[in-house]
Amino acid sequence: MRKATLRLNCRDVPGIVYHVSKFIFERGGNIIHAQQHREELDDRFFMRVHFDCAQMVDDKAKIRRDLADLATQFDMETRLSFSDERKRLAIMVSKYDHCLYDLFLRHRYGEIGADIALVVSNHPDLQGISEAFGAPFVYTPVTRENKAEAEAQTHALFQDYGVDFVVLARYMQILSPYLVERYRHRIINVHHGFLPAFKGAKPYHQAYQRGVKLIGATSHYVTEELDMGPIIGQEIIRVNHSHSVQDLTAMGRDIEKKVLAEAVRAHAEDRIMVYSHRTIVFE
Amino acid sequence: MRKATLRLNCRDVPGIVYHVSKFIFERGGNIIHAQQHREELDDRFFMRVHFDCAQMVDDKAKIRRDLADLATQFDMETRLSFSDERKRLAIMVSKYDHCLYDLFLRHRYGEIGADIALVVSNHPDLQGISEAFGAPFVYTPVTRENKAEAEAQTHALFQDYGVDFVVLARYMQILSPYLVERYRHRIINVHHGFLPAFKGAKPYHQAYQRGVKLIGATSHYVTEELDMGPIIGQEIIRVNHSHSVQDLTAMGRDIEKKVLAEAVRAHAEDRIMVYSHRTIVFE
Amino acid sequence: MRKATLRLNCRDVPGIVYHVSKFIFERGGNIIHAQQHREELDDRFFMRVHFDCAQMVDDKAKIRRDLADLATQFDMETRLSFSDERKRLAIMVSKYDHCLYDLFLRHRYGEIGADIALVVSNHPDLQGISEAFGAPFVYTPVTRENKAEAEAQTHALFQDYGVDFVVLARYMQILSPYLVERYRHRIINVHHGFLPAFKGAKPYHQAYQRGVKLIGATSHYVTEELDMGPIIGQEIIRVNHSHSVQDLTAMGRDIEKKVLAEAVRAHAEDRIMVYSHRTIVFE
Amino acid sequence: MRKATLRLNCRDVPGIVYHVSKFIFERGGNIIHAQQHREELDDRFFMRVHFDCAQMVDDKAKIRRDLADLATQFDMETRLSFSDERKRLAIMVSKYDHCLYDLFLRHRYGEIGADIALVVSNHPDLQGISEAFGAPFVYTPVTRENKAEAEAQTHALFQDYGVDFVVLARYMQILSPYLVERYRHRIINVHHGFLPAFKGAKPYHQAYQRGVKLIGATSHYVTEELDMGPIIGQEIIRVNHSHSVQDLTAMGRDIEKKVLAEAVRAHAEDRIMVYSHRTIVFE
Repeated sequence: MRKATLRLNCRDVPGIVYHVSKFIFERGGNIIHAQQHREELDDRFFMRVHFDCAQMVDDKAKIRRDLADLATQFDMETRLSFSDERKRLAIMVSKYDHCLYDLFLRHRYGEIGADIALVVSNHPDLQGISEAFGAPFVYTPVTRENKAEAEAQTHALFQDYGVDFVVLARYMQILSPYLVERYRHRIINVHHGFLPAFKGAKPYHQAYQRGVKLIGATSHYVTEELDMGPIIGQEIIRVNHSHSVQDLTAMGRDIEKKVLAEAVRAHAEDRIMVYSHRTIVFE
Repeated sequence: MRKATLRLNCRDVPGIVYHVSKFIFERGGNIIHAQQHREELDDRFFMRVHFDCAQMVDDKAKIRRDLADLATQFDMETRLSFSDERKRLAIMVSKYDHCLYDLFLRHRYGEIGADIALVVSNHPDLQGISEAFGAPFVYTPVTRENKAEAEAQTHALFQDYGVDFVVLARYMQILSPYLVERYRHRIINVHHGFLPAFKGAKPYHQAYQRGVKLIGATSHYVTEELDMGPIIGQEIIRVNHSHSVQDLTAMGRDIEKKVLAEAVRAHAEDRIMVYSHRTIVFE
Repeated sequence: MRKATLRLNCRDVPGIVYHVSKFIFERGGNIIHAQQHREELDDRFFMRVHFDCAQMVDDKAKIRRDLADLATQFDMETRLSFSDERKRLAIMVSKYDHCLYDLFLRHRYGEIGADIALVVSNHPDLQGISEAFGAPFVYTPVTRENKAEAEAQTHALFQDYGVDFVVLARYMQILSPYLVERYRHRIINVHHGFLPAFKGAKPYHQAYQRGVKLIGATSHYVTEELDMGPIIGQEIIRVNHSHSVQDLTAMGRDIEKKVLAEAVRAHAEDRIMVYSHRTIVFE
Repeated sequence: MRKATLRLNCRDVPGIVYHVSKFIFERGGNIIHAQQHREELDDRFFMRVHFDCAQMVDDKAKIRRDLADLATQFDMETRLSFSDERKRLAIMVSKYDHCLYDLFLRHRYGEIGADIALVVSNHPDLQGISEAFGAPFVYTPVTRENKAEAEAQTHALFQDYGVDFVVLARYMQILSPYLVERYRHRIINVHHGFLPAFKGAKPYHQAYQRGVKLIGATSHYVTEELDMGPIIGQEIIRVNHSHSVQDLTAMGRDIEKKVLAEAVRAHAEDRIMVYSHRTIVFE
């Protein structure tokens, strides 16, 4: 049984839910789940509809054309995806393996709703793990000098491998605008701090210095400004005076894994919409 | 601006969302929020629609009649409520005041979405608090001998005061089927244990004896079987070997208050549906 | 049965626990609980010993003199308190009543281990509540012009009422160094944000703008630098895109109350030590 | 630098802390951390002392003999371990690999404070994983007929491999009293339910049926009575009506891993004491 997910946003006028559900009903689809959100401040309406399309008579191209008409009528932005076109993700890593392992294991358990196309790294260390889980591993060293070239090469790789979105699983390089632009709201990073506190380098050291009683991890879409992209999810863990920076680092691994895996899953399931630098993450 | 909430459930056939949104759209309503749930096991569809009805031309009676026709067509159970008809709740208490205070304070902050009609107690102790917050207090002693009479009297009071639902805020008497029947799925109790563990009396003592590392509190609808009604919400708090039964009792107050207040609010906002002994609680 | 609590810190040399326990044992005391912490970075040892002193033969003055000798020997800083000298706290408030109510109610339940000496406010609004709970209420308006005078007056009040520490229960004025100095590490504030993010005014608005997925509250000792004092405790609550600033404000009340009450209790029970801008909070 | 951990319990008489710290001090040891607990009900005192023994002049045998004298004097039960004698654990598994992976990965990160001696399984499935992490894997099929023999064989294996404690990482067989007796309070199981609710088989199904709003996982020492041993730790995760039994099973994996890893670490670090069917778990 094939399913589809439609995301849309438009000015809030009466009848959106009606017209969208009519569109689906008349073509033989059946709504399983519909979610809405209304931004009070500027009167904008967001909707995600997950529907069964096994009985729909039209082909995908026809549905997309008709949807474009509806979108024009209501001045909507729309995104439509089908469950038989599983998303493919690239994982970028450096030397830390905990998030990589976690993504591989969750993928095997069917928990992330997308497939791992390849792993790209600026270090060779994690080649063995990647290959053990059957993922191609491409070692692409990055220096100040070759950065532009390395990213162009990575971009080409992503195209070859049909990559839909990119996951920075504790990747220790800052991406340049070149890649960020090409994967706008499709690059997910995990920051090992509770953003917006503790931006930049060594957030666990910063947290220790400040004497916080909770440490956090934050998943977000990468934008041109470091650690300032739209936040997808956050997790925390309780700490106290007895914990050293090393302890915080170890305890943080658990929440980094969790917050990243949940962001990957939400993105893969088309549950995230970005608006005005904030995310709407439907459950 | 007036709003309405429609809850319904029926067999899952294509087009429910469409027909319901059409019903609302054609009468001038505008859907703010729609939520659905599908029970896989027996193919049943649940929906809650919260909509703006300020521009609807029909009066409530007409809307209800038309809705009854729709319900017949799809063999639906429906419930429709309007925001200008705020629910009224009765609080039943004994001697503990923490949940009572919490409900009064949250009510004043506008957090529970319903009004407190009166307080009924089998002890006179909490009269002062109730009156300080402007709620009528009725002292109704309950003994083994007068129980039936006392409950009939309480029922009469509820009718006089226009009570829609009842909140047992650490009320230390077991209600008889007489009241339970008359307020089916409209009596909310807070149990100071993590149900289904630690049913019945002295759950903190039971938890201590068993050496659990988390204690819980559970809000549920009251049914004829003690502590076995459909669970609405649960909260826990971490405990350890150093905590005495007295500590557990003190720590538990915080989660009892929270879990009860959230259940009251969910009920007041028509976000709960009961099916097959489980609750669907829409966010 | 009388109890005492000794807090000390000194350079970490062998035998501290031994010498302290010997000191207590030889005078007829019995250790109930001892806790230690060692700061790796600069080799400093912290200890809190809670002991039964009902059988001690010396009077308090003698014990304090002998302790001073021990302190000299190991170059210790020490603090000794006795359970029969309950601490007295002043609460400073403005117009929000949720933290005030919470402290009064927890005091009545015996949860905070100290007594409420008086309530001071720059607004008259909360006089009724204070008096209902039997606490003197002093209305001290604060303007830019009279601030120094108002604080001097408040200080005099604190002295008259035997105030040991001060609790800013959502007090909306910034204290001047005059008071801060006189109650160094004895003024507890609750900030309605997850420090160090969202310092200063309107933290819920800041959190909303940034699109965080968790909001926090932080209790800390007040220092001369706004919202930068040593953190005592932090609590968070999960939020999402559907929550308005008003929702965050309402949800935040619960964690503000909790984090403040726990800080007050920890301070009252002599479980906090401040070192190098961080707190050691023993359980 | 070598460290040692002493655990003891005895009747609560004045001077225990003093005599123990004297014992350590006089032999050249230095206390890093001491923790105590007093059971009010029967006046029993528990203590764990972690101390630096690098400067101690006596050898281990002499220290143990002297400790036996002290134990006799106060009628203490004592346990003494040294950090240079790392504990060795056996993992028993069936087909689920999530806890096994988690233990291997945490071991590699140095998080569990013990070494993995071998993996024993009643199925051959997890041989590859075990060997990839360098642990011997022994496949020991268990049937109703060969159970006694299989356990005797496993016991012999444990002895050959110098196994100190056993971890049932979702092992789907019930151990017979033969093994339980021999490893009293040294076999850790993870139960995928919030004990004491949902004992026995299919706890996620039970939880789903009851409609709970939180599911749990529990680590405990195995005793002769199924799922009734002393609880070491518990974790929960919030669920709702939308989650199927399959969802609960997937969500539960995260808390099973966490609760088991923490129990293993606490046991490895000698932080657990069992008394009267409850555990004291020092932090």
